[in-house]
Amino acid sequence: MAAIEISIGNYIVRRLEEQGIGSMFGVPGSYLANFLDNVESSTIKWVGECNELNAAYATDGYARFRGGLGVLATTVGVGELSAINGIAGSYAEELPVLHIVGQQPSKDQEEGLNVIHTLGDGKHFLLSKKEIGLGVVDARIDQVIVDCISKSRPAYIALPCDLVDVKITTTRLHDPLKKEEIKINPDAENTAIAHIYQRFTDAFSGQLDNNVVVIADVSISRHHCKQEVADFLAVTDLPVYGTPLGKTVVDETSVRYGGVYVGSLSDAEVKKKVESAKLVLLIGPLTTDFNSGKFSYNIKDEVSIKLHFDHTEVGFATYGRTGMKELLPKLGARLKDFKEKASQLTVPKFELKKVTDSDKLITHDWLWWRLGAWFKEKDLIITEAGSVSYGVIDLPLPTGSSLLAQKLWASIGWSMGATHGAMLARGEIEGANATKTILFIGDGSLQMTVQEISGLIRSGIAPIIFVVTNGGYTIERLQHNVEGEYHNIVTWNYTELLKVLTSTSSSTETETYKVTKEEELGKLLDVEKIREKNCLQLVEIMVGRDDAPPALRRALGIPDPAKDTSGHEGTIIPGRRFFKAPLGVIGW
Amino acid sequence: MAAIEISIGNYIVRRLEEQGIGSMFGVPGSYLANFLDNVESSTIKWVGECNELNAAYATDGYARFRGGLGVLATTVGVGELSAINGIAGSYAEELPVLHIVGQQPSKDQEEGLNVIHTLGDGKHFLLSKKEIGLGVVDARIDQVIVDCISKSRPAYIALPCDLVDVKITTTRLHDPLKKEEIKINPDAENTAIAHIYQRFTDAFSGQLDNNVVVIADVSISRHHCKQEVADFLAVTDLPVYGTPLGKTVVDETSVRYGGVYVGSLSDAEVKKKVESAKLVLLIGPLTTDFNSGKFSYNIKDEVSIKLHFDHTEVGFATYGRTGMKELLPKLGARLKDFKEKASQLTVPKFELKKVTDSDKLITHDWLWWRLGAWFKEKDLIITEAGSVSYGVIDLPLPTGSSLLAQKLWASIGWSMGATHGAMLARGEIEGANATKTILFIGDGSLQMTVQEISGLIRSGIAPIIFVVTNGGYTIERLQHNVEGEYHNIVTWNYTELLKVLTSTSSSTETETYKVTKEEELGKLLDVEKIREKNCLQLVEIMVGRDDAPPALRRALGIPDPAKDTSGHEGTIIPGRRFFKAPLGVIGW
Repeated sequence: MAAIEISIGNYIVRRLEEQGIGSMFGVPGSYLANFLDNVESSTIKWVGECNELNAAYATDGYARFRGGLGVLATTVGVGELSAINGIAGSYAEELPVLHIVGQQPSKDQEEGLNVIHTLGDGKHFLLSKKEIGLGVVDARIDQVIVDCISKSRPAYIALPCDLVDVKITTTRLHDPLKKEEIKINPDAENTAIAHIYQRFTDAFSGQLDNNVVVIADVSISRHHCKQEVADFLAVTDLPVYGTPLGKTVVDETSVRYGGVYVGSLSDAEVKKKVESAKLVLLIGPLTTDFNSGKFSYNIKDEVSIKLHFDHTEVGFATYGRTGMKELLPKLGARLKDFKEKASQLTVPKFELKKVTDSDKLITHDWLWWRLGAWFKEKDLIITEAGSVSYGVIDLPLPTGSSLLAQKLWASIGWSMGATHGAMLARGEIEGANATKTILFIGDGSLQMTVQEISGLIRSGIAPIIFVVTNGGYTIERLQHNVEGEYHNIVTWNYTELLKVLTSTSSSTETETYKVTKEEELGKLLDVEKIREKNCLQLVEIMVGRDDAPPALRRALGIPDPAKDTSGHEGTIIPGRRFFKAPLGVIGW
Repeated sequence: MAAIEISIGNYIVRRLEEQGIGSMFGVPGSYLANFLDNVESSTIKWVGECNELNAAYATDGYARFRGGLGVLATTVGVGELSAINGIAGSYAEELPVLHIVGQQPSKDQEEGLNVIHTLGDGKHFLLSKKEIGLGVVDARIDQVIVDCISKSRPAYIALPCDLVDVKITTTRLHDPLKKEEIKINPDAENTAIAHIYQRFTDAFSGQLDNNVVVIADVSISRHHCKQEVADFLAVTDLPVYGTPLGKTVVDETSVRYGGVYVGSLSDAEVKKKVESAKLVLLIGPLTTDFNSGKFSYNIKDEVSIKLHFDHTEVGFATYGRTGMKELLPKLGARLKDFKEKASQLTVPKFELKKVTDSDKLITHDWLWWRLGAWFKEKDLIITEAGSVSYGVIDLPLPTGSSLLAQKLWASIGWSMGATHGAMLARGEIEGANATKTILFIGDGSLQMTVQEISGLIRSGIAPIIFVVTNGGYTIERLQHNVEGEYHNIVTWNYTELLKVLTSTSSSTETETYKVTKEEELGKLLDVEKIREKNCLQLVEIMVGRDDAPPALRRALGIPDPAKDTSGHEGTIIPGRRFFKAPLGVIGW
């Protein structure tokens, strides 16, 4: 009996369907077209983007939300290089993004022809047919996909366009691809648990005063352990603190949640509680400048226990072949002996500051508290890497809410594409049950990737986009030479964007608003109830040129405007004038 | 006496001023800020762009127009990778673009800290302070700039931000940097000239019938030899043909200019003249798919003489250390013996087809001839890499006009930034004498880099932008699966873009138009005289979904609609329906 045959292009698509891919992002190109024929005839939705960087950001958001594979497809050279900054971000933040690159035909590559998208020196980019080896091409494709999902890092499939229609057998398709799990060593695991138990015994041996605290950090969500952590906290009742990157990994409305620890930039009470603890259990920690208050953690190694996805550190001892996902349920069962004592440990209150809506101009000191009270359970909140990412740090975010932000790679412009991808993933997983998705982005970031608005409209999805505008790159301005002209950008007519970046005949409804005063935003939230509208909405919020969220001011060592008696217009720092753009006065 | 000191940042800026840099393009970032202080206090204008890819394209256009150095500055990681596709294009098309990258402080790099814009694995991108070596930093900077301009390829200066203010001596600044010229070997040159003279003698020995033709190609403009070629043609009176990439390198209105040779895609008469010639002198040839009719040149090596910028080929003999810039005046002087005979060789007429304005819908068959008659001497014409780049091939472009296009790397979206950069360079060189700059771009390309419109407005420059819209990626659609949904894009309200991507309070005037019929465009050109308006103008020209310029149809082997008796709406190919976008019917 002859083996059943399938084209290489179709083989790849079948593998992606098997991985649950519902949407694939990218930009077509002549070397990609015949592969896209295979996508068009599959269950996967092709999401054509305006450019490749936006497509890469969307794929990142898709992989980030679903906690699994995302797929990007572009043409060679111009397409793959335009996307590379997005791919680098997915690498830095550990996301399994597969980038399929449609290449010149093998023959053109072998002969080094100066066809389009080459450097004119006869060198081509990636693999030729000979190098790939047709006999093993199916195994190679499988291995790339398995590596991508197992290592949770980007991977490439370079596909000369003449190979797309070449036939191979379907034999390997009988076995679905699976993520390679870490091989746990039960003996190492048991020893680590015993060691931790001993440390807990010691820590709780004296009087009850700040004996043990937990810090829940971002790798929990990267390695899909939110449920294990929630169960662990429920069974132990330990006090828990978050981190800037670790927002929403645990329930921030819990009475056992004490706020965000961020080294020397922490709230004074949080700082004291964490740094005086006899034992600190860090789950999924990641040390970056943003996450650690510029590396100002003051927790000694000898009082630290760190649970990572693939190893465990107890003081100075490292236990390999143990991972938090498998360890946490067993550790919780063992440590419940300490629950009674742990439950008596006090935790600072982490609450929203109550604010009211006046006729004052909007300041960051008011804005985030106001929004914090408006957020709801299970909201998906996305923040751009700029100043808005600092806005949410001080807020207890609602139960079940998720926060997405790209704060290590920190490429501004990311969030618009990421919102697109994350919402499509959310639709595939949650369907009609999905609650609101809310994006915060600054004007400098929006300008980077503005065409992605067209993508959102084309996909017919309905986030609320808050564009915080002040005519410049705020973080950079506040860090160095506040009057430097190079910090300035042009202020666009943001509220007109939705009408322009869509088809005249589009039936997709959109709404836009512009607010400068507290009561104007308050009205949108409470009276006009924008949350309940099922259409794409853009809200422009104008703030002062030098205004910034409290957490950003702390990070930059800028005086707290609440204590600044000279000010009368919110948070404006004395001596700093409003922005005058070369093209006219903007701001307020 | 103590040496006079200067900061490294200021040293670099002084070197760039010395190279005549009037504008520097880029996007700020926290690691770049203190370098930009140096730019702000120099004679160089900082051109802040909306994103780094656009900035790279603008720098490419700046270098391309001025025939010299262009400078881009971005932050590390996110900025440099966002720009890299633009840099690759400058590499492929041989442009001296210097990319200055503001990096993390040396100490952060040495310690491998996970600060923003890193990959989270402790690895940083480029050089640390130790590796640079402060004692030689001035010599290293000089060498990078000299290499960049001498090799006419991109180069990087990676600048850890803590080094910017470090002081070095001004000693080296006393000697201006100079391009390293090719070292000509006079003996090799004389031998090559004698060899060429002998070949001319042989070629002209028989009867006068197509004895010698010249093909003038793109490397002439890349290596700044347009004047030398013009002088050579004047002194020899040889028949000359162009190439697609070599448009405008010689005067296309000359009676000795016979049209464009592009292998099997050439006009029949041109093909015959060139391929039957006894001797073909190719000046500055470059073999790419676009330029050679997909490698279909039919000229034997034994009848070819090729003049390159750094060597000369006569039949099968190669003469190194000779270059066309130096060779051409001497060769012209030697070959003028043949002028009388050469002047008798007949040349096909290369003329504009006359068209009139009717009330018909605009087609590519009408459009380019109509525009060809409207172009004027010294116009700067810029075409995007998409279908519009084929529009101008068949037109004799006016004396002194220049055509810029990126057709090897062929990254769509390039032209908007390139127009910005080229026009700023033009302003610096020609001042008020600069004539009109005219950009042609398709809708798919415009969407890639639309925010660059904001840059054009911010710089206060006034090109005419013709946006040819048909709701998709035309070249790709016509190459493969014309009904593939993935070819489709959303049709924006292009005529509203200029009002949105600018400040409400901007005093920069702009005008926009939308035309679908011949007489509508005719009226804009002749009655409204848009050429004479001194403001940024955008003209949307709607064409049929499957319509394409004649040269593109020839390249793709699509039947000539003039011979298609079934058609009644211009160039629509039978059986191909109009585009129906998912968001409504567009086109006409």
